[in-house]
Amino acid sequence: MKIDPRSSAANNAPMFTPRPIGFVRSPYKETREIPKGLGAKHEAEGTLEILPEFEPGLADIEGFSHLFVLWEFDHSQGFDLLGTPPSDDRPHGVFATRSPRRPNPIGLTVVELLRRDGGRLHVRGVDMLDGTPILDIKPYLSSVPPEQLRRGWLAEAESRRGKAGSLRED
Amino acid sequence: MKIDPRSSAANNAPMFTPRPIGFVRSPYKETREIPKGLGAKHEAEGTLEILPEFEPGLADIEGFSHLFVLWEFDHSQGFDLLGTPPSDDRPHGVFATRSPRRPNPIGLTVVELLRRDGGRLHVRGVDMLDGTPILDIKPYLSSVPPEQLRRGWLAEAESRRGKAGSLRED
Repeated sequence: MKIDPRSSAANNAPMFTPRPIGFVRSPYKETREIPKGLGAKHEAEGTLEILPEFEPGLADIEGFSHLFVLWEFDHSQGFDLLGTPPSDDRPHGVFATRSPRRPNPIGLTVVELLRRDGGRLHVRGVDMLDGTPILDIKPYLSSVPPEQLRRGWLAEAESRRGKAGSLRED
Repeated sequence: MKIDPRSSAANNAPMFTPRPIGFVRSPYKETREIPKGLGAKHEAEGTLEILPEFEPGLADIEGFSHLFVLWEFDHSQGFDLLGTPPSDDRPHGVFATRSPRRPNPIGLTVVELLRRDGGRLHVRGVDMLDGTPILDIKPYLSSVPPEQLRRGWLAEAESRRGKAGSLRED
């Protein structure tokens, strides 16, 4: 039977059961320690500790300079469809932000791979809390050319902030 | 009680329960129709149909030129830690490829947002099957400069292919 994806049967069909493939080792023990907001630099180094049973899946990963890391916002409960991010004083839709309070609490971070040590990937650019469960790692293969990028409300907020310099940055 | 993330208690702790926020409308009805392998261009246009209850979460998304789409490989069962991708004739670790057979069957695609029509996002660059469940949408905010990217086995496979021109591309 073909299920129309817009039917409630499809909406309620069970999806996969997420499992951690490993955990992040990060200098951040508390959410408030993580740099947020406009111009936040994510230069922190950390380790992606992959569980021994998944370590064979890392074969040849050391050839890539950058990786996508998918992880769980495991300290987040529930979601808000609208919220005011640290980088603006106006609310935006959750899918136009990086809020942790998402319908599926999945985070996405691009990190630079510094070196691999068995099941440990030493990386730069972590913005996750220490102990964060990792869902997946994928190679970063290509970039959108900067001249083709439009950054929506974030560019507007930066522009307003450049003029007013008064937005909170927490 | 603080759980050591490396303990089996943490590894077996329940994670979130994924739910679809919408479904992809794509020209691809079968996996074999999706361009794969080296130099595959993803220029296909499609629609991200967001469920009515999540539509408010799209507020202000139209200002972004590109989006990350997280979705479920819902036709994939099980996983392989090593596999030979279409773009090479040698096996690589699953986390160094975009294989659908992953421990957590989550796909990641960068699309260009062409226009929004209520809960429908018309996009370019879909590589998902028609009816694919969408897990999350996030704004694409910045790129890794191309001169800083290393593309591991893929660059090597391209190089070998340039010399030999004999790798399969399916």
